Amino acid sequence: MNASALLTDLYELTMLQAYHDEGLHERAVFELFVRALPPQRRFLMAAGLEQALDYLENLRFTPAELDWLRSTGRFRPAFIDALRDFRFTGDVHAMREGTVFFGDEPVLRIEAPIGEAQFVESRLINLVNFSSMIAAKAARCVLAAPDKLLVDFGLRRAHAGEAGLLAARASYLAGFAGTATVLAGQRYGVPVFGTMAHSYIEAHELETDAFTRFSLSQPANVTLLIDTYDTEAAAARVVALAPALQARGVNLVSVRLDSGDLGDHARKVRAILNGGGLGEVRIFASGNLDEHRIAALLAAGAPIDGFGIGTQLTTSADAPTLDSAYKLQAYAGRARRKRSEGKATWPGAKQVWRCLDAEGRLAHDVVALADEPPPHAGALPLLQPVMRGGKRLAPPEPLADLRAHAAAELARLPDALRTFDPAPPAEPYPVRISVRLRALAHELDAQAH
Amino acid sequence: MNASALLTDLYELTMLQAYHDEGLHERAVFELFVRALPPQRRFLMAAGLEQALDYLENLRFTPAELDWLRSTGRFRPAFIDALRDFRFTGDVHAMREGTVFFGDEPVLRIEAPIGEAQFVESRLINLVNFSSMIAAKAARCVLAAPDKLLVDFGLRRAHAGEAGLLAARASYLAGFAGTATVLAGQRYGVPVFGTMAHSYIEAHELETDAFTRFSLSQPANVTLLIDTYDTEAAAARVVALAPALQARGVNLVSVRLDSGDLGDHARKVRAILNGGGLGEVRIFASGNLDEHRIAALLAAGAPIDGFGIGTQLTTSADAPTLDSAYKLQAYAGRARRKRSEGKATWPGAKQVWRCLDAEGRLAHDVVALADEPPPHAGALPLLQPVMRGGKRLAPPEPLADLRAHAAAELARLPDALRTFDPAPPAEPYPVRISVRLRALAHELDAQAH
Repeated sequence: MNASALLTDLYELTMLQAYHDEGLHERAVFELFVRALPPQRRFLMAAGLEQALDYLENLRFTPAELDWLRSTGRFRPAFIDALRDFRFTGDVHAMREGTVFFGDEPVLRIEAPIGEAQFVESRLINLVNFSSMIAAKAARCVLAAPDKLLVDFGLRRAHAGEAGLLAARASYLAGFAGTATVLAGQRYGVPVFGTMAHSYIEAHELETDAFTRFSLSQPANVTLLIDTYDTEAAAARVVALAPALQARGVNLVSVRLDSGDLGDHARKVRAILNGGGLGEVRIFASGNLDEHRIAALLAAGAPIDGFGIGTQLTTSADAPTLDSAYKLQAYAGRARRKRSEGKATWPGAKQVWRCLDAEGRLAHDVVALADEPPPHAGALPLLQPVMRGGKRLAPPEPLADLRAHAAAELARLPDALRTFDPAPPAEPYPVRISVRLRALAHELDAQAH
Repeated sequence: MNASALLTDLYELTMLQAYHDEGLHERAVFELFVRALPPQRRFLMAAGLEQALDYLENLRFTPAELDWLRSTGRFRPAFIDALRDFRFTGDVHAMREGTVFFGDEPVLRIEAPIGEAQFVESRLINLVNFSSMIAAKAARCVLAAPDKLLVDFGLRRAHAGEAGLLAARASYLAGFAGTATVLAGQRYGVPVFGTMAHSYIEAHELETDAFTRFSLSQPANVTLLIDTYDTEAAAARVVALAPALQARGVNLVSVRLDSGDLGDHARKVRAILNGGGLGEVRIFASGNLDEHRIAALLAAGAPIDGFGIGTQLTTSADAPTLDSAYKLQAYAGRARRKRSEGKATWPGAKQVWRCLDAEGRLAHDVVALADEPPPHAGALPLLQPVMRGGKRLAPPEPLADLRAHAAAELARLPDALRTFDPAPPAEPYPVRISVRLRALAHELDAQAH
């Protein structure tokens, strides 16, 4: 799903032509950040950076794309000719994927000739905005059920295909055990999980036959869906069938509940399975789940061992948008500031410093100019160089390493950030703006245009 | 962005293997429908069917995909060998894209050997769910501003790339004038619109210089962004610059507002432009708009001629999910019914009949078994045959024709469906279930499993 160079907004191309006409090619600094967190979120988690780098490294116009652009009559021939050799040749600093971040903190800083740096805006936001939003949503599910098996079931309700694929990656990064989306297994090595659909049960005259046939078809790891007709009756059927299936080599791992009062069914099914000697068979639940419903089920003691989380995860349904932006912060060595009402930005190339408390938990962050010294000893700079001259500085990090980093990040969250109480926090996480950065902003505001 | 056959849920593959092992290949009927409309919607609009047919017609496993499946060790070699020749060979009935529909109404009916019909579930829902959701959201914007130029600006905040692309198509289908997403122009012929970014203004020392250079670079159709520093001061600059630009062949079409109180700025800017002899220059507004804000601006008499609608459109932010389902309705000639609590479905292959009132407006729909006669003379059957034996019955309809159909559909909406009042309707649109269909459901419920 490597995107076409035409997956961009028209104004990126018209501005590129204008810069080309004017001969404006000085270096620009753009930063990608989220202005303010949605009220439903206390933190975000950086993700999609790998896809962003891949896009930058492989960006080019194909002959067919150039022909089409020519056919529109919007662009001058000399400009289209120049696009043939268009490449991204800039430098990139980025937060490591899995890093927790907050409003006003750049997650990506691009430095390149202005036309290049501008052109990549639409797709960079498109990639980083979505994956970071999903990683944050997934991380909340992980916080709700830290010891449970969590699986992404959301492909069908994701906003088309790429969202389904990238949501599988982002949720695994954030701590999910895996996904149902097969392509995420092939593409990213995400572990793939699956059970059966109600239609499979219905295609057999008897539920018992469906259970038997399915188990024999893939005996190594079997999960049976038991809510098609009567959940408890189906659990009793599983107990009755188990000895014969096990004798034929079937490894019956779990049963799945997908409807009704999941907590109540889980308790009844647990008792039926235990009473039938199937204490080892786990209970997996799905059906319109999110972090709130999972937390409520677990708080009520529901004996559920794993959750399939779909729609609410892959659409981030309670907060399906982020107020993300990609803004010019410096051009030709001079800081710039957008001052539109309600949308002013902090100017200049910046660094984000993370400061931990004595227990190693997040205490506060400082957003400072990139050339400022650390705000104090031990502060961690979150933006690191990842690309120079259009080439990655290192091969992509294994997803397992990024996942371990995300887990460490979640472990460092203070209690105020761990809750998913919908009420706004008494005190938001402190993101401080350095004295020099504030001074620069005031200085730019005093200039005329 | 033709998707891999692996863009599916694992259970589709494990069920396919089970059907293969069992030799179950009788014909199945599956239907894709939305169970109930979100409370924020009074109608939906069918879209994404063209993408669904394209998927069905081109579905196949590549050698690399088969190698990967083999490498997972989950599947038997004989099954993987059989996948080499896997094709969709079934028949499809569908609603025409642009058709208004409601809860419990199939928009797609698939009849094929059960393995094939089942396998395509994940991607079919993934495609039709998203495009139909966006078409409905776009249609609401069209109802809010029927005589204005509406443009999709939402690529960057769409849920990754395919969503951005398909949202451009779906919103154009529903009546938008076009999109900023260039790829939708190349891929679907959707008209493409664009202006400039704040960064372009900021890259120039003086706003005046930026306006001049940009206008000269693409003189045929110029829109200037005027809110970077001071909106009214910029409008005055446009007035001052206009004679010289026009003398150099620049066609100054519009100015864009993107921040602050859009209605207030529009009134002031309109006065400045009119006072400067630029009464023909239009005002285009953007910035976190949706149907509610647009309606409020227009109700207050804001002199705005067009709207760029982004995030709220391409994420359907107020209702970012649909409760869509794809269910087995018949197998081997016998109707089936899922009876899970709260998720029971209407069994059998079905038809949706639309009944209009004397003024040609939607009066009620009837969901009936496919072999029932029309509920009365003049009722329109919404599901039409579009594919037989895995091949389309006709080439794809031109998007312009589908767009005209969508416009006719919106013109037929009764007043109760035209409002976008967030309060639930006093009486929802009547979708009646035929007597025979109800009888069949009761009959199936009485059977044991």
